[in-house]
Amino acid sequence: MMTKYNNLVKNAAGRMVPEVINGEKHIPFMGVGKYIPEGRKFAPRISSCANYPSDGNKTVPSLREALVRSGLKDGMTISTHHHFRNGDLIANQIFDVAKELGVKDLRWFPSASFPCHEHLIPYLQDGTIHRIEGSMNGPLGKFTSEGKMRGLGVLRSHGGRYQAVQDGEVQIDIAVIAAPTSDPFGNANGVEGPTACGLLGFALADSQYADKVIVVTDNLVPFPCIPWQIHGNYVDYVVKVDKAGIPEKIISGTTQITKSPDRLLIAELTSQFCDEAGIIRDGFSYQAGAGGTALSIGIYFGEILRKRGWKARFIRAGSNKYPVAMLEEGLVDYILDGQTFDLEGVRSMRENPGHVNTSPFTSYNYHGKGNFAGMVDVVILGATEVDVNFNANVVTHSDGYLLHGIGGWQNCLFSKTTILPIPLFRDRIPVIRDEVTTLCGPGELIDVIVTERGIAVNPARTDLLERMKGSPLPLKSIEELKDEAEKICGKPDKPALDDELVAVIKWVDGTVIDSVKKVGS
Amino acid sequence: MMTKYNNLVKNAAGRMVPEVINGEKHIPFMGVGKYIPEGRKFAPRISSCANYPSDGNKTVPSLREALVRSGLKDGMTISTHHHFRNGDLIANQIFDVAKELGVKDLRWFPSASFPCHEHLIPYLQDGTIHRIEGSMNGPLGKFTSEGKMRGLGVLRSHGGRYQAVQDGEVQIDIAVIAAPTSDPFGNANGVEGPTACGLLGFALADSQYADKVIVVTDNLVPFPCIPWQIHGNYVDYVVKVDKAGIPEKIISGTTQITKSPDRLLIAELTSQFCDEAGIIRDGFSYQAGAGGTALSIGIYFGEILRKRGWKARFIRAGSNKYPVAMLEEGLVDYILDGQTFDLEGVRSMRENPGHVNTSPFTSYNYHGKGNFAGMVDVVILGATEVDVNFNANVVTHSDGYLLHGIGGWQNCLFSKTTILPIPLFRDRIPVIRDEVTTLCGPGELIDVIVTERGIAVNPARTDLLERMKGSPLPLKSIEELKDEAEKICGKPDKPALDDELVAVIKWVDGTVIDSVKKVGS
Repeated sequence: MMTKYNNLVKNAAGRMVPEVINGEKHIPFMGVGKYIPEGRKFAPRISSCANYPSDGNKTVPSLREALVRSGLKDGMTISTHHHFRNGDLIANQIFDVAKELGVKDLRWFPSASFPCHEHLIPYLQDGTIHRIEGSMNGPLGKFTSEGKMRGLGVLRSHGGRYQAVQDGEVQIDIAVIAAPTSDPFGNANGVEGPTACGLLGFALADSQYADKVIVVTDNLVPFPCIPWQIHGNYVDYVVKVDKAGIPEKIISGTTQITKSPDRLLIAELTSQFCDEAGIIRDGFSYQAGAGGTALSIGIYFGEILRKRGWKARFIRAGSNKYPVAMLEEGLVDYILDGQTFDLEGVRSMRENPGHVNTSPFTSYNYHGKGNFAGMVDVVILGATEVDVNFNANVVTHSDGYLLHGIGGWQNCLFSKTTILPIPLFRDRIPVIRDEVTTLCGPGELIDVIVTERGIAVNPARTDLLERMKGSPLPLKSIEELKDEAEKICGKPDKPALDDELVAVIKWVDGTVIDSVKKVGS
Repeated sequence: MMTKYNNLVKNAAGRMVPEVINGEKHIPFMGVGKYIPEGRKFAPRISSCANYPSDGNKTVPSLREALVRSGLKDGMTISTHHHFRNGDLIANQIFDVAKELGVKDLRWFPSASFPCHEHLIPYLQDGTIHRIEGSMNGPLGKFTSEGKMRGLGVLRSHGGRYQAVQDGEVQIDIAVIAAPTSDPFGNANGVEGPTACGLLGFALADSQYADKVIVVTDNLVPFPCIPWQIHGNYVDYVVKVDKAGIPEKIISGTTQITKSPDRLLIAELTSQFCDEAGIIRDGFSYQAGAGGTALSIGIYFGEILRKRGWKARFIRAGSNKYPVAMLEEGLVDYILDGQTFDLEGVRSMRENPGHVNTSPFTSYNYHGKGNFAGMVDVVILGATEVDVNFNANVVTHSDGYLLHGIGGWQNCLFSKTTILPIPLFRDRIPVIRDEVTTLCGPGELIDVIVTERGIAVNPARTDLLERMKGSPLPLKSIEELKDEAEKICGKPDKPALDDELVAVIKWVDGTVIDSVKKVGS
């Protein structure tokens, strides 16, 4: 049996992390921009057209047959993608097949997992699946936090997932791509067909680097399937099924602007801050998430642009009906979309040439010749906790439970200004702590914390502090914010955690930035 | 000094070829579909965002500076692309810089060369350039044919060029991509800007695999440059110049339908043949080139579709105003364009979502999991010579001079039916020979020869012969056609060739299918 992990060492962030994880060597975090890789990218096997059907027809009758022909066997790495989010129907079927075939010890490498994947818990228990490397939202996170997964979980950002595949850190044996539309050659997209869900960007790395690639679709069209978000030239087999996914379930967070007075205040303070700091200007760019507060901030940004006759150059999204409305109103040139969060987003990506699909390669991969994250003027992100050094946590709650994935969160921190609009406390638990339970983002990359009771600017951002001099906004130190919360809620207890590790958190460069401990029993 | 080539061996086509070429080992042709590669793709160095500007601005003041920063030095491989065809302005400048810097022994790896590159002959003479690997059209072909190039020329098809780069057979040190539009990050396209020339697909392999990538543009736009035919994530430096190329010079062949009665007859016979053989049907697909005969065939195809209320699924192109008119009339769903041949093609690619840019990766790479070539119902190609075994030559004239590149010609042979409409003789020299001077395409892949005096079907295509039974078309054997030509023109002399080799011809799988000899003095 492989070593789950070895003794811990202290990394550059002062966190204790293993160097051997699931039997493989990993590098502890060395500091932002400090680890420079010296190797070469993963080199997939060379294929030959001589081994593929000359008429381009790669269809096989079932997912089972495609998996068997792909050589599914013990210990393999199987990847899937979360374009359908909680409406994914395919990942569960793959492991149903694996169970039927008696295959064991698989590594599941999803781009994210969702509550719909609770179905897989018996397979984690019976040895079909050894471990998950990917976000473990909801029930799988709870299962893992309680120490029940045999292997150690590995959490990566979207960009880190691309990096890990590109660099050969994770070698995918079989990638299964659920696609709303495909042709028999395997060219595929997510914008056409009855289950259109948006883009297929999370599967790009897998298509490029996996040994075998299976496309599963419910809408088989004659060659050529245009646009070809996935190139059939990377695909081995195509499977037609009744339903590739449930597109109505792609909705992320809320599609409602917040009605909470505190959250509205946070949104207003955030947009005012951006305006006063000179971040909002003609041609600026931003990324805001899909929560109620973030949506409200986007609305404020739109109002400012409209009032002044300005136009944003691009919005990085997670798109939904709000940025789409801005695009169609002419308030922004482009939506650079990493993932569509509602069906209006899907429609817009299909119809608007300015609604551009991106991938973790273009947007987030830290081991490329640059990426787009650094070109975004301001990103608005969430966090479960922040500490007095501006370090932030996005994966565990303050009780230690691993309930969220990293998503693009770490990658976005490289924007010109990163703002976390967060409530000062949640369920009477302060959000600003002496130390975060799990370190996901180093404080040096987090610039501003906006709460309903004040705004803290990272002291390292002297330029922002300079620009905000004389502002009527409630600027405070982060310690002041923490004290205010503690005055109201009391000093929070540290979570009761076991010494045993259940997962590690990767940084964008593949190094290990923190460990996640088992929740104490 | 490296070995130009070693002793020759006989390959599976009976041609004498070297196994060592310019000091490197190569595999002799083993037969169509017989060589199955066992290695892995070339693995480029892993980059890190830490080494690139955080604001994404990769512009440098000059091509010279970009080349110097890219580490230009003796013996390197420098690649360029022929999107501007004879209007290329950048390749010559690169070697002007190399000459100024005193750099020697470069390998120039263009996707094609044109008469405008005659400028480089002094650099071939003075040692700045050691050799060209790529088509040598016109003056460079003559120079090479006369044995004046120090290295051995290597000619590859468009697909073979992608394959060679992907497989690491050709490792590009510096790729220079002339782009009509780019942003400072290096995202680039060919459809926008004052020098819009169409697509940039020939540079895809280079962008993915070259060590350093330089984009040269005359139209720098703010990030994001959309569409991004080239991803800035692969780009090291961006250079702004006054003019990236002369788009008016992309015109290939003629844009006039032939007026020659013989050629019109050939065109008519070809389209009648396709119709009677049942190749033309609702939803069929074809590729026709840009010569006068091919254009006329496209016109005939269009007439048949219009008359019957049919629609082609796609046209593979080299696009120009004729397929564009068909697309805009609704006679075809898609143009899958590998290279735009006039400015109407450029406009259409910019405006029509059904006018899709492709690359040698999608269309032609033989070392992928299939490619598109096999899905085309019929391709119409030219040839300088054909022999009685249906083998064909497309690079040398019957006098032995190397005057044409392979282009996509070899790759297209994998279509369902390949037809060569050719005159029985040119300048009183018969085109059908006992043996082709240079073998580019094995006869087993060439199905039909159409001449003004008759049509010869490859005896291996018993299905076509069956379908043509009772046809009023003048079906003859290829020997009959050869005899007719020789009755008129006499038996042609073999060209006076030296024993010394000047170039080799690669097959689509990277094996060596033939050698090109020095033209006798």
